[in-house]
Amino acid sequence: MRDLRIGVVGVGMMGADHAERVARRISGARLVAVSDPDMDRAGALAATFGDVRAIDDPLALIGDADVDAVVIASPGFAHAEQLTACLEHAKPVLCEKPLTMDAESSLRVVEAEHKLGKQLIQVGFMRRFDPEYAALKELLDSGELGRTLLLHNVHRNRTVPATFRSEMIVRDSLVHEVDVARWLFGAEITRITVHAPRPSGLVGEGVQDPQLAVFEMANGAMADVEVFVNCQVGYEVRCEAVGEKGNATIGLGVDVLTRRAGHWGGVVPDDFRVRFGLAYDLELQRWVDAVAKGTIDGPAAWDGYAAAAVCTAGVRSLQEGRPVEVEMVPRSEVLG
Amino acid sequence: MRDLRIGVVGVGMMGADHAERVARRISGARLVAVSDPDMDRAGALAATFGDVRAIDDPLALIGDADVDAVVIASPGFAHAEQLTACLEHAKPVLCEKPLTMDAESSLRVVEAEHKLGKQLIQVGFMRRFDPEYAALKELLDSGELGRTLLLHNVHRNRTVPATFRSEMIVRDSLVHEVDVARWLFGAEITRITVHAPRPSGLVGEGVQDPQLAVFEMANGAMADVEVFVNCQVGYEVRCEAVGEKGNATIGLGVDVLTRRAGHWGGVVPDDFRVRFGLAYDLELQRWVDAVAKGTIDGPAAWDGYAAAAVCTAGVRSLQEGRPVEVEMVPRSEVLG
Amino acid sequence: MRDLRIGVVGVGMMGADHAERVARRISGARLVAVSDPDMDRAGALAATFGDVRAIDDPLALIGDADVDAVVIASPGFAHAEQLTACLEHAKPVLCEKPLTMDAESSLRVVEAEHKLGKQLIQVGFMRRFDPEYAALKELLDSGELGRTLLLHNVHRNRTVPATFRSEMIVRDSLVHEVDVARWLFGAEITRITVHAPRPSGLVGEGVQDPQLAVFEMANGAMADVEVFVNCQVGYEVRCEAVGEKGNATIGLGVDVLTRRAGHWGGVVPDDFRVRFGLAYDLELQRWVDAVAKGTIDGPAAWDGYAAAAVCTAGVRSLQEGRPVEVEMVPRSEVLG
Amino acid sequence: MRDLRIGVVGVGMMGADHAERVARRISGARLVAVSDPDMDRAGALAATFGDVRAIDDPLALIGDADVDAVVIASPGFAHAEQLTACLEHAKPVLCEKPLTMDAESSLRVVEAEHKLGKQLIQVGFMRRFDPEYAALKELLDSGELGRTLLLHNVHRNRTVPATFRSEMIVRDSLVHEVDVARWLFGAEITRITVHAPRPSGLVGEGVQDPQLAVFEMANGAMADVEVFVNCQVGYEVRCEAVGEKGNATIGLGVDVLTRRAGHWGGVVPDDFRVRFGLAYDLELQRWVDAVAKGTIDGPAAWDGYAAAAVCTAGVRSLQEGRPVEVEMVPRSEVLG
Repeated sequence: MRDLRIGVVGVGMMGADHAERVARRISGARLVAVSDPDMDRAGALAATFGDVRAIDDPLALIGDADVDAVVIASPGFAHAEQLTACLEHAKPVLCEKPLTMDAESSLRVVEAEHKLGKQLIQVGFMRRFDPEYAALKELLDSGELGRTLLLHNVHRNRTVPATFRSEMIVRDSLVHEVDVARWLFGAEITRITVHAPRPSGLVGEGVQDPQLAVFEMANGAMADVEVFVNCQVGYEVRCEAVGEKGNATIGLGVDVLTRRAGHWGGVVPDDFRVRFGLAYDLELQRWVDAVAKGTIDGPAAWDGYAAAAVCTAGVRSLQEGRPVEVEMVPRSEVLG
Repeated sequence: MRDLRIGVVGVGMMGADHAERVARRISGARLVAVSDPDMDRAGALAATFGDVRAIDDPLALIGDADVDAVVIASPGFAHAEQLTACLEHAKPVLCEKPLTMDAESSLRVVEAEHKLGKQLIQVGFMRRFDPEYAALKELLDSGELGRTLLLHNVHRNRTVPATFRSEMIVRDSLVHEVDVARWLFGAEITRITVHAPRPSGLVGEGVQDPQLAVFEMANGAMADVEVFVNCQVGYEVRCEAVGEKGNATIGLGVDVLTRRAGHWGGVVPDDFRVRFGLAYDLELQRWVDAVAKGTIDGPAAWDGYAAAAVCTAGVRSLQEGRPVEVEMVPRSEVLG
Repeated sequence: MRDLRIGVVGVGMMGADHAERVARRISGARLVAVSDPDMDRAGALAATFGDVRAIDDPLALIGDADVDAVVIASPGFAHAEQLTACLEHAKPVLCEKPLTMDAESSLRVVEAEHKLGKQLIQVGFMRRFDPEYAALKELLDSGELGRTLLLHNVHRNRTVPATFRSEMIVRDSLVHEVDVARWLFGAEITRITVHAPRPSGLVGEGVQDPQLAVFEMANGAMADVEVFVNCQVGYEVRCEAVGEKGNATIGLGVDVLTRRAGHWGGVVPDDFRVRFGLAYDLELQRWVDAVAKGTIDGPAAWDGYAAAAVCTAGVRSLQEGRPVEVEMVPRSEVLG
Repeated sequence: MRDLRIGVVGVGMMGADHAERVARRISGARLVAVSDPDMDRAGALAATFGDVRAIDDPLALIGDADVDAVVIASPGFAHAEQLTACLEHAKPVLCEKPLTMDAESSLRVVEAEHKLGKQLIQVGFMRRFDPEYAALKELLDSGELGRTLLLHNVHRNRTVPATFRSEMIVRDSLVHEVDVARWLFGAEITRITVHAPRPSGLVGEGVQDPQLAVFEMANGAMADVEVFVNCQVGYEVRCEAVGEKGNATIGLGVDVLTRRAGHWGGVVPDDFRVRFGLAYDLELQRWVDAVAKGTIDGPAAWDGYAAAAVCTAGVRSLQEGRPVEVEMVPRSEVLG
C-alpha cells in the first residue's frame, strides 16, 4: 500500500510539530509539502526533512495533485476558507481546533460537507486519543460506575502570552473541555455559565484568568471546569467523572484512578506488552533510524555477553546457595 | 529515503508483536518477510499484512537480498547461528535477549562482530528505551542525587507456564535487571548471590520462585532484585535508585518519583506537547489509517460546530455575568 | 491541676463517640455525666465507663454543679435552648454543628454570648483540627502560593438514611465546606448557587443528590463544592486550593499535595517524631491501659532478647563480611 | 479509677518527648517524676509541668512509693541495672530499645522476669503501634495474600551525629526492622548478612552507611533491609510484604497500598469517624486545654451564625434554581 502523501498548512509551533510527527513517527504516511505565510519558516522546516516542498499559497497546497490529505494548523480565522478548499478538492483534512471562529461559519462547513455525502473533515480534539481519556470513556460507557452525573475538570497552562485575552481562554482552552463533556456524556451542552473569580495578579490588566465554567447537559448532568492559563506551575489537565456507583479520575499521572465500593486504586498491567509497549515502539523506531545511518542506538553485543556471564554465575549461586564471582574476559582484551 | 526492509525471524508472541510494530507503527521501515519453524503460523501472520513473504528457513530470510535488516525473536538456543549468519551477510540485527545461551558462545559472537570492524548487533534490553528508565538514567547521570549507592529492583509476572524452571527465572527474567544494573551504574557486576526464600505454594514442585538476588558492582555499589514470576497480581517492574543526596523510584505509575531535601514528588510537564505528545501521535496515526480506508476516525465537523456554539454562549456568559442558553440547530435538521 | 469535669448532652452516634473520647483518650478531662431523651441508652453508655451519671434532663446536666463544661451532641433543633442554658450557667460548651437551625436563632445566640462579655461557645467545625486541613491553612496563610483564587471541594458519604432530604444535605453536609471556605479565605460568602444535576437513581424519590454548590466570597474569590451523600464508595472529603503561584490538595490520603514551579509532591518528615508521633501516643496509651489491668500490651522482654541476639550476629556479619548464624537459647528452655 | 503515676528515667530527646506525652496527651496517667544524670535538665523539664519532681538517682525514682510505673529512656548501657530495679520493686516498665546492650545480659533480664512469674517489662518497639504497620500485620494474618514470602524494608534518617558508628546503625536502627520481621512473620531470624556497599561520601571516615541486611527466617522466608542513616532527604520508613497472592506496602504516606489480582490501591474509609477520628481527638483535647485557661480555641458562635446564614440562602437557591445573596448582619453591629 502506497504511503499517504500529506501536506501541512501553517507551520507555527503546532504545525511544525505535526509536520515532524508525519515525517518521522507516523507509519503509512509521508510529508510532502508545507505551507505558511512566512515562506522562510516554511522553507527552513521543509529543508530539515529533505524531499518536502514549501508552498506559498495554502490553497495551492490543498489543490496540489501530489497531496493526498491535509493537516490544517493555521490560525483559526483562516480555517473556513481552507476547509472549503479541502471539500472542493475532496481532500481528507485534519483541522486543528477551532473548526472556525463562530457557530454560524462552522454550521456552513458542516452543511457543505453534508452535501458532499462523505465525511472528509476531522477536528483536532485530541483528548479523545489520549490513552487516559480513552480508558475513562471506556469505563464510563461500560456502565460499571452507573450513569455519569458530574464531571470536574481542571485545565491549566503555566503561562500564555499577554495577547491571550479572556475570550480566547474560552475559545482556545475551554473548548477542549467542551468537547470532553459532549464526548463523555454523549449529550449536548444546553446552558453554560462562565464565572469570573478574582483574577490572578500575575496576568495582564483586564484578562479574566482563572475562569470557572459550569455546563448543563441535555441529559441533566453537569460539568464544571477550572481554566487557568497562567497558573505558573506547568501544564495540568485533569478530569474526574462521578457516577452513581463510583468515580474515576485521570490526569493525576497514574492512569485511571477509580474509587468504588470502599476501595480506591488502579490497574496492574497484565503483561509486559501493556507496560512496555511504548518502550518496544521506541526501541524499534530508534533502531530503524540508526540502522538507516549505518549504526546502532542501544545495547550492543558486549552487553549481551556481560549479561550472559552474570546469569551463568547467578544460576550457579542459586544451585550452590552461596555468592559466586562473575567470570568475564576484560573488555579491552576483546574489543581492544 | 527508502524505507528499511525488515525481516522477522521467529513469530511467537514476541516476534508477532515486533512484526506488527514494524508493519503498522514504525516510520521509515517496512515488514517484508517473516520466518518460523511453524510455516502455518508464519504464513497466517504474513497474510494479515499483505505483501509480506513467509520464508521457511531463517537463514534464507537473513540472506535474502530484499531484506535490509533482521529482528531475531526465535528461541535463545537458535540465536548463535542466526547472529552468525547476520554477521556473514553484514545485516544489522536487533536480537531479543538473551544474546545466546551462555557466556562462552556470547563471547564468540562479540569477537566475530569485532573482527568485522562494525557494530551490527543490538540486543533487546528494552528497558533502556522505556521513558521512565531513560528519565531515571538521565537523573542519575546528572549527579543531582550524588553518586548512586544502591538499587532496589522488583520484577514480577502474574504467572508463567509450568515449564518455566528456576534457571529460566535467572536467564530470562533476572537478566533484564542484570542489564539495568550495569547500565545505570556504568559498571560491571563482579559477584552475584541468588537467594532461595521459601517458594510460593502456587508454583510447580521444585521451582524456586520468588528469588532474591544481590549484585555487587565493580565500583562497590550494590543492587538487590526480587524476581517473582508467579506473583498472581500482574506485571510489576520497579526500580529505586538510592544516591548520596536523594533517591528516585520508577515503576509506580507516576513517572520518576524523587525524594530529596525534605520533599518527595515529581515533575509537572512544561506544556501540552509533553503531556499529550503520545495522544497527538495516536490521533495522526489513526487518522492516516482511516483516510487510507476512505473514512475518518475521530471528531467530525459536527463536533466542531457544537463546540463553536457552546464557546459563543460561553463568551457571552463571561461578558454578561449570567448563565446563557446554547443555541444550536438540531442535528437532524442539518445531517438528516 | 484538677481534671475538667465534662457532661455530654445527646448520646447518639456522635455523642457516644465524644463520650468515649473524653473518658478514654483526652488528657486533663473526665467524663462525669451523660444525658439523652432515651434514658436506657444514656444509662447503658454511662455504665460502660463507671462513675458516670446518666441524667434525664439535659438542662439539669448543664446546670449541675459537678459539671464544669458541656459537649452538645443533641439534634440541631434542641441546640438553641441548651446553648442558652450553658450561657446562663456560664458553662463552656462545645456544640456540634449546626449552631442552631436558622440564621435568626443563631444570631440571638451570638448576641446573648456577646452580652456576657466572654466566649463560652465553640462550634464543632472539626475540619479546622484535621492535620491536613490545618497544614493547608498554614500553607495558604504563608503566602507561598500567592493569593488564593479558587477552592474545589468534594464531600461524599457512602450512603445516608432515606430520611436525609435535600435541605439536610445543605444544612448538615455542605455546612462543613461553608466553614472551610470562610476559614481558608478569611472572608464571608456573599452569594451562593446550589445546582441540581440529574440525581442518582440510587437515592429516594425527590432527594436531590448530588448537589453542586458555587460560593462567591466577599474578596471576589470563589469555591465550588460537590456534595454527594449517597456516592456508594465510602467517605471522601477533598479540598484543592488554587493560588496565583501554585495549588495544593488535601484528602488524597497523602497529606498536602502541592504543585508549584514545575513540580508536584509533598514533604518527607524531618524525623521519627513526626512520622511516628501517633504511634508513640498509642504505645503509651495502650501500655497505661494495660498496666492499669496488671498486664502489658506490647513487645515483651523476650522480644528485646531476640533482637539483641540478631543484632549481635549482624554486627559480626558486617565486620567479617559473611552471613552469620543467630545464636539464641530456645524459648521453651527459658520461659517453659 | 485513679490515674497511673508515672516516672520517666532519662530526659534526653526521647525521654522528654515521653514525659510530655504522659503529662499532656495520655488519658489515665499522670507524670509525677523525672530523673536524669543532668539534674538541671531534669529540673527544667519538671518545672514546665508543675507538680512533677526531679529526682537525682534513677534507682530512687524507680523505688519511690509514689511512682506506680516507669518509662526508661536512658542510654542503653544503663538499662540492665534499671530494669533489674524495676523487677525488684515489681514496677511495670516501658523500656526504650535496646533492652540491653547484648544478648547475654538481655537473656538474664528475661530469666529474672520469668522467675517473678509476671510480665512487667514492655520494650519500645513502637512500630507495632503505628496504624500502618498494625494494618499490615492484620492483613498478613488474615491470609488474604497467602503466606508471606518476602519483606523489603527501607529505614532512612536525614542525618545522624558523627558519633553514630557502623555498629550503632545495626544496634539502634536496624534493630527496629529486626523486630518488624520477627513480628510480621511470627518467626525467629536464624541467619543474618549485613552487606557493606560503597559508603556515602557524606558520612564520616570509616562509617559504613548505607548497609544492606538480609534476614533468613526460621520458616524459610526472607527479608532485606536498607538502613541509610545519612540519606540527606528526611525520615523514610517503608515495608513491603510479598505474599503468595499479592503484596502490600506501607510507609508511602497512603496507608496500606495493596496489589492483588490485577489491581493496586487502598481503602476508602467507611465514614467520618475513620477519616476524621484524629481531628475529633485534637478538637476535644484543644478545647479542654483552652477551657482550663478560661478561653476557647476553635470556631466561635459567630462562625455558627455565618454558616447558618449561608445554608439558609443555599436551601433557597436549591429550591428556586438561581443564585441567592447571603443576608448577614455586619459583624461589627453585633460584636462591636
